[in-house]
Amino acid sequence: MEHTRIKQLLLSEETGKEVIVKGWVRTFRNNQFIAINDGSTLHNIQAVVDFEHTDEAVLKRITTGAAIRVKGELVASLGKGQRVEIKVAEITILGDSDPEKYPLQPKKHSLEFLREIAHLRFRTGTFNAIFKVRNALAFAVNKFFNDRDFVYMHTPIITGSDAEGAGEMFRVTTLDLNNLPRTESGDIDFKEDFFGKSTNLTVSGQLEGELAAMAFGNIYTFGPTFRAENSNTTRHLAEFWMIEPEMAFYDLEDNMDLAEELLKYVINYALKTCPDEIEFLRNRLLDEEKSKPQAERSELDLVEKLHFVIENRFERVSYTDAIEILKRSKPNQKKQFKYLIEAWGADLQSEHERFLVEKHFKKPVILTDYPREIKSFYMKQNEPDAQGRQTVRAMDILFPGIGEMVGGSQREENLEKLLTRMAEVGIPEEEMDWFLDTRRFGSAPHAGFGVGFERLVLFVTGMTNIRDVIPFPRTPKSAAF
Amino acid sequence: MEHTRIKQLLLSEETGKEVIVKGWVRTFRNNQFIAINDGSTLHNIQAVVDFEHTDEAVLKRITTGAAIRVKGELVASLGKGQRVEIKVAEITILGDSDPEKYPLQPKKHSLEFLREIAHLRFRTGTFNAIFKVRNALAFAVNKFFNDRDFVYMHTPIITGSDAEGAGEMFRVTTLDLNNLPRTESGDIDFKEDFFGKSTNLTVSGQLEGELAAMAFGNIYTFGPTFRAENSNTTRHLAEFWMIEPEMAFYDLEDNMDLAEELLKYVINYALKTCPDEIEFLRNRLLDEEKSKPQAERSELDLVEKLHFVIENRFERVSYTDAIEILKRSKPNQKKQFKYLIEAWGADLQSEHERFLVEKHFKKPVILTDYPREIKSFYMKQNEPDAQGRQTVRAMDILFPGIGEMVGGSQREENLEKLLTRMAEVGIPEEEMDWFLDTRRFGSAPHAGFGVGFERLVLFVTGMTNIRDVIPFPRTPKSAAF
Repeated sequence: MEHTRIKQLLLSEETGKEVIVKGWVRTFRNNQFIAINDGSTLHNIQAVVDFEHTDEAVLKRITTGAAIRVKGELVASLGKGQRVEIKVAEITILGDSDPEKYPLQPKKHSLEFLREIAHLRFRTGTFNAIFKVRNALAFAVNKFFNDRDFVYMHTPIITGSDAEGAGEMFRVTTLDLNNLPRTESGDIDFKEDFFGKSTNLTVSGQLEGELAAMAFGNIYTFGPTFRAENSNTTRHLAEFWMIEPEMAFYDLEDNMDLAEELLKYVINYALKTCPDEIEFLRNRLLDEEKSKPQAERSELDLVEKLHFVIENRFERVSYTDAIEILKRSKPNQKKQFKYLIEAWGADLQSEHERFLVEKHFKKPVILTDYPREIKSFYMKQNEPDAQGRQTVRAMDILFPGIGEMVGGSQREENLEKLLTRMAEVGIPEEEMDWFLDTRRFGSAPHAGFGVGFERLVLFVTGMTNIRDVIPFPRTPKSAAF
Repeated sequence: MEHTRIKQLLLSEETGKEVIVKGWVRTFRNNQFIAINDGSTLHNIQAVVDFEHTDEAVLKRITTGAAIRVKGELVASLGKGQRVEIKVAEITILGDSDPEKYPLQPKKHSLEFLREIAHLRFRTGTFNAIFKVRNALAFAVNKFFNDRDFVYMHTPIITGSDAEGAGEMFRVTTLDLNNLPRTESGDIDFKEDFFGKSTNLTVSGQLEGELAAMAFGNIYTFGPTFRAENSNTTRHLAEFWMIEPEMAFYDLEDNMDLAEELLKYVINYALKTCPDEIEFLRNRLLDEEKSKPQAERSELDLVEKLHFVIENRFERVSYTDAIEILKRSKPNQKKQFKYLIEAWGADLQSEHERFLVEKHFKKPVILTDYPREIKSFYMKQNEPDAQGRQTVRAMDILFPGIGEMVGGSQREENLEKLLTRMAEVGIPEEEMDWFLDTRRFGSAPHAGFGVGFERLVLFVTGMTNIRDVIPFPRTPKSAAF
């Protein structure tokens, strides 16, 4: 490899040496100054062309988006904002970019427009920064768990079970839809399908994760999960990545401690390893907010907000206490909530979560011990309280501007209680036999949680549409690229 | 958290302190010695019960597979093979395990049997070791690329394109199979499907990876990929994980260098971080081979084989030279190959690859510059040779016992050549418009490759069936758990 990456060059102190750079033209000013970016950093390196001694035909081809190779001397820069630049001795056009046709021009494009050309948006500063932060967060997740001896488990994507009921599922099939095999009674014969039965894309690796936790102790998954819900919002994707740790011998307290530690660790890691990217995104957000009325602007900028989260203990509140706070709250009293909180048992809506996090506590909140009826069957059942109300050892972590960042619980380890609950919600025991074996053979207290990775990236980048933090978003009626 | 993990305790020098351990009973001998494992390590800790002062009812419940909590003093062990053990002061049964029903008994089970109970096999030494090695390899992959400033891209799992033609695909749909919507002409109306068109599970993230590489320079993917081929072999899975780096400004040499460096790095990382696990697997393999005739046993044991790979340069041979070697080889002359090599242009079969790697060169081999006709459309076309033979800048890395570990190429960056080739193989230009944009705007030489992660795990663990190195294998007619 003959070239040096721009990130290295910009850090270099060794002026006077000959360097070769390969990258894409961002701008070309005065027939002289080329801003070159090779993706290694948000920043461009400036290459100065001696236009009087450069072929006119070559100069004409130095257009935004063109790929070029530049050889020259690394010299101290007289320009602002850069220490070094390249005095070009030799320039080669590797690939042209017709300025009449190239969709990315050196001007501000809307995020909506860039979503249409998701295959090219990586070439902008904003998306360079977003995906560098995403990359840092992904590595931090793996490092956090690896440092703590958790085993990374690749739980299956294609599954024959639909037990968690976390949402609508996508069918996976190789059957010929124009010629579906039928059983004698006329039903579709899934025995003829690839896996010999009806299969779907996973909505969660948790159940398989529990199997592994009951052997390795501490495990985590980090992989794609799927929801076939027709939700066209800025918070939902049909395909997204989820982090799901599962720990034997953990109770709900241990679970909350781990989740809080994880979130703080990865946010801190991003701040430490992506200072330029986060600064860029902070300024982007400040710019964006300028167009909003004062009252709607954030009190904290992006960097302040991230520091605020890592420096404060998350508020831990029971559902029961939260309901009391909400009942007495102004927006409830003044009937400003769309869904008024009238009694214990109500499911919390986004407006309630936001009130608790953004108005009442003004920091991340962990809500615990939700009513049994509004949570999943596998959550550990508390003893009924004095009024006979039944809750489960659930916890949701709510973040400002994001809502639910984490959902988790201690799991019900008692076979009888689990079977009773499954029967109540209509999950057939025989389909879950493998899962129930964990409660039959060496059952033990255990807990786990799930983090929506894109929501984490949203929070750390300060972006507001989840389609902007995953390379190629999958949403209803859209699976481009 | 009150307990300490066994891995820490076994490394501890501080005898005399009180410790709490939680784990599962592996064996219970003489009403006195419990071997406890908590999954943190392959090794058990011995807990010694004072059976004369322990409740008979509790002693009876100390059975293989039961989850227990043990409190006691960490003391120097008099037994062989361990430095410390626990003198039990207090024992609690957390979860029973009925010895009449528990499928895992303290004896050797066949791998076939364990595959049937994949949800419990993690509780054996063999699978503890395998998945610890898998975990180490996964982390090493991420660390290797992170250290080199590659951006981890999560390319989409659900895709609307079937361009690579790498294999049969799984359909993803939310259409009601019992009531398929039809267009006026009677075809299935995929406009009504979730994504508004026909979608499948990805066979490779490469094409999307190329889009990102042409912005970030160096990227990699590491995620699940799918093949709906009816291959019931020890080498194929319907769902498997793949690592796919893609690099702008890399040629085939750079590509080979990176692939070789990656493989050596991750194998070395596993050797360094999992010495006990690999030693265990080495002995397992030696045991297994004892049942084979001398001639079929490996010349090198597992550890020797891994060192051999990281200490030797992979042999780089062109397809054309390989054909000459094969033509003149004994098994070809003596007609022992099932597919005899008669002329240039033949596709290499597993038997030929094994001959080259295991008999001829006796080390990993990188085959390059295959005939254009037997490779993918996106590979860079070489100039025809003196005899007019057309080859592409492909490379496959072949490993002993495994076959193809890596497949890659320099990519065709020339738009015209790419379009011609696409027309020849019948890929419609309009479906690939987004991909072609990389060649329209700032095209540049670039290259990449794919590593089948499970094949890597197979190689490093010395296992022979790919179903044993992924937690829950998906194969034809099987998607259990």
